[in-house]
Parts: sequence; C-alpha cells; structure tokens
Amino acid sequence: MTAMSLDETRDFLDREFPQLNDGVRAYHLEAVGPLTARMRLDHHERFLRPGGTVSGPAMMALADFALYAAILANLGPVALAVTTSLSFNFLRKPGTDGLIAVCTLLKVGRRLAVGEVRITTKGGGDLVCHATGTYSIPPR
Amino acid sequence: MTAMSLDETRDFLDREFPQLNDGVRAYHLEAVGPLTARMRLDHHERFLRPGGTVSGPAMMALADFALYAAILANLGPVALAVTTSLSFNFLRKPGTDGLIAVCTLLKVGRRLAVGEVRITTKGGGDLVCHATGTYSIPPR
Amino acid sequence: MTAMSLDETRDFLDREFPQLNDGVRAYHLEAVGPLTARMRLDHHERFLRPGGTVSGPAMMALADFALYAAILANLGPVALAVTTSLSFNFLRKPGTDGLIAVCTLLKVGRRLAVGEVRITTKGGGDLVCHATGTYSIPPR
Amino acid sequence: MTAMSLDETRDFLDREFPQLNDGVRAYHLEAVGPLTARMRLDHHERFLRPGGTVSGPAMMALADFALYAAILANLGPVALAVTTSLSFNFLRKPGTDGLIAVCTLLKVGRRLAVGEVRITTKGGGDLVCHATGTYSIPPR
Repeated sequence: MTAMSLDETRDFLDREFPQLNDGVRAYHLEAVGPLTARMRLDHHERFLRPGGTVSGPAMMALADFALYAAILANLGPVALAVTTSLSFNFLRKPGTDGLIAVCTLLKVGRRLAVGEVRITTKGGGDLVCHATGTYSIPPR
Repeated sequence: MTAMSLDETRDFLDREFPQLNDGVRAYHLEAVGPLTARMRLDHHERFLRPGGTVSGPAMMALADFALYAAILANLGPVALAVTTSLSFNFLRKPGTDGLIAVCTLLKVGRRLAVGEVRITTKGGGDLVCHATGTYSIPPR
Repeated sequence: MTAMSLDETRDFLDREFPQLNDGVRAYHLEAVGPLTARMRLDHHERFLRPGGTVSGPAMMALADFALYAAILANLGPVALAVTTSLSFNFLRKPGTDGLIAVCTLLKVGRRLAVGEVRITTKGGGDLVCHATGTYSIPPR
Repeated sequence: MTAMSLDETRDFLDREFPQLNDGVRAYHLEAVGPLTARMRLDHHERFLRPGGTVSGPAMMALADFALYAAILANLGPVALAVTTSLSFNFLRKPGTDGLIAVCTLLKVGRRLAVGEVRITTKGGGDLVCHATGTYSIPPR
C-alpha cells in the first residue's frame, strides 16, 4: 500500500509540473509501490544529443522526477518537498529508445528522504545511469 | 589563453547541441578563460517550477553545459568528451531571474577532467546550486 | 568465476595495504564473486564515535576497501588502480556491532570501474550507508 | 566572529572525538572564521598507502572533520549534528607531506548545513582532493 495510488500520483504530478510534458508528453509514471516508483521517458528528438543518444539532462530530469514520484506516492501530497542533492554516474550510452527509471527509497525520515534510481533502456539491458538523491521533507 | 576563443566555443556548441536552444535561445556562453567558463540561463517559462522558481533539471543542464564549455575552450574541440559523473547540492530557491553558472576546472588530466560549477542568480547574491562533475576525455 | 580467488585477493590486500589492519585486524574480506565482493568490519573501540556508533570515516574506509577488493578480484592484480571519486549517503546510526559492506560493480570499462556499496549492520537490517565510487584503471 | 573561538572548538573536538588522535596527535585545527575552518593532517606512517601517499580514508576523515569543525565554530556546540552525505573527487597524488583542508560553508540553514572542503599539500600547490558534504542540524 502507498499513501497515494498510481492515478492519484499521476494527477498530482500533472497538476504541479505541467511544464515537464509541455508540447509533448514524454514522461510517464508507470507504477508506484512501497518505497518505489517506475517512470518511463519516451523517445523524442528534443532529448537527443549528437550521435543520437538521450542527453544527460533528460536523464537527470527523469531521475529527479522518479524520485519525487516515489516520495509523493509513499508520503502523500507533499508539494513542497525540495531536492537538496543529486548525484549521477553515467555508465553507458543510452541509445535512442526510451528509458526506464526505477526508484527505490533507501530512507524515509522525518526530515529527509533518500533514494536511488536505476535507469535502463526500455528494452532492458545494462544500466545506463545510476543516481542517488535527497529530498527535504517539510514539517507536517 | 584558451585553445578555442569565446566565439569558436560558441560556434562549436551551436553546431553540436542545437537542441539545447531549440525554440528559444536561453543558454548563452558569456566568457571563457584559462580553466574557466561562464554561462547564463535566461528566464523562460519552460524552465519554471511551481512557485515560479527555475527547475532543478534546468540548473543541472546549465551546470553540465558550463562544464563542457570550459573543457572545450581549454582542450579544443573534443566532441566526444562524455560526462561520467555529476553531483549537485541545491542550496537556495533560485527565483525567477536568469542564472549565472561559473565553472572552474579543478583538474585536466589525460583521461579525466574534473570541474566545479557555482550557480547564482543573475543579479548576484548567494549560491543557489553547487555542482561538481567529471568528463572522460577521449584519447588524442 | 573471478580473475582472482578469495584467498588470492586477501593475500594481495594484506601485502599491499598492511596499514589497514595494523595493530588490530578489523577489515575482513568475506567473499568475492562476479562483479561483487563482501567485506566485514569488526567492532573495535578505535572506530567508535560519541554515542558508541561506528564513525563515518571507518565506514568510508570500509566502502572504499570493498570496492577495491571487487575490482581486484574481477580484474586481477591492478595495484595501481586509484579511486577517483566516492559519494556517501549516511542513512542510519550504525550501532556498535560490526558492519557488512556488499559491493556490486555497475560498470567495468577499459578506463573506469564504477560500483556501489551497501553497508548494513552485521546482524542484518536496514542500510546504514550507501556509497558509489569510481576507480581509474591503468592501461594494461 | 564565530560562535566558538578556536580554543573552544579545539577543546570541544578533543573531548568529543578522542579517538581521532589516539596514539598520535595528527589532526590539528588551525583556524576558524565566519563560515570557514582550516585543519591540518600531519604526516604519519599510519595514513600512508603503497607508494608513500596519504590514503584516501585519511583524507576523507580530514574533510569530514574540517566540515564538522566549521559547523561547530559557527553554530556553537551542536554535538549531535550528523553527517548525512559526503562526496569526494580525488584529483592528484597527495605525496607524503602533511595536508591542509580548508572548509567553506555554502549554506547554514535551520536543518542542514552544506560545505565544501579543498585539500592541498602542506607546502601549497594544486588541489589533491575536493569534497562537499551535508550535516543535519538537530532542532535547537
């Protein structure tokens, strides 16, 4: 069980972050669960770099977004949670397919939530990026 | 002296990363120097988050881009340098003005270049984000 | 299969890093496998902080050491591999028992190896520390 | 002005962290100031690695300790401040001389303090290590 269902979390994200999908809907929350969330980034030319690979910033946005979705789903609508730190290791070229980001929360404390995010190509395969991040949780 | 002038670095970035400024020109390389580069992100609605602040991903793209510009200007056109890691501490709300990112290279080795990036609001003031990052340099 | 067996990796570490266990043998390599290594830090007063918990630096040394052991076991005796970056999230108080660090290599490239390390209390239970790190691999 | 003087900060550290200097006094707090602290690590065989360089863990302990000293001096005796994250880039071989760590606090918030630490060889020269870290500040 999570504090918000998949549909509730999606609606909240659409309302609060309309810019993320402006013009083209590319970020899709696929699943939420206890301490986890899974988000997909579809292929779109806007996210590509020379050589046809997905850009680093598009992957960083995906990881940040997946982490936020996992926190939202598990804590409820904490609109004011803010990212305090993010660290990325870029491991392989992502190719041109879409990407899947799976976030697992490592800690949900009263003040901080810490999670890791593993990004793979949509068809599966090796990690293309590993991220860890921290959100500050406002007092409730 | 740098390996590429400001204009040469700008031209290279425009050619290699047209997507970054597609639709709206928001990222501007303002200066390059020995081990440094300065890049500006202008205000644009596309980069805003609820509350009107610049989004984390827009700042992360800015830092990555400033680091790449500093490497380019100092090493010459190494189109295939790739980001291997990036770490961010988000320190304060960035507000709605544009942002300035100043990158300083801490090390330029044969295989790796490491730099830090300090992001402030355009009008000056406290740091809003501190980043460090590593690029892998292809054999030359 | 790994490039070096558990005993070979242990012998190499003892020869190359005698200081790590000087006075008291506290760091024990427990297992190596494809892309993994497991290392134990036994309880010892030298590693404690006020309140009786294992110190951050003792955990950081454990993570660095476990990552190095995983690289050694998988690549063979690369004595000159050097740590280029390490990032830690400290998640919970470690208590006074020994600690177990499990390292998984996320990438073993020609020039860089990247891994993550999960540290738990010896008896099991929640993560106390999560680390990621990068080693530079000398040309072979 | 700082909340604690250099002598007060030293006394506090000696009382709270006797283990850091057990056997041999190697870590010396040299100066504190507004948002800063400087700490020295003297040469000692215990901290050396093959090739005669100071070990990564000894540098990580130095950075963590310098960051804690800067927080203490600036906030007063917050014994229960705890490290929540640390990130290191190791830039050059440190050699066998002692090391100097200069910490600058980038943010001192109500709940989090963030700082960076620059480590150079005692005689001056290039950076050998750059670190950033976050401490959680207990409610006061």
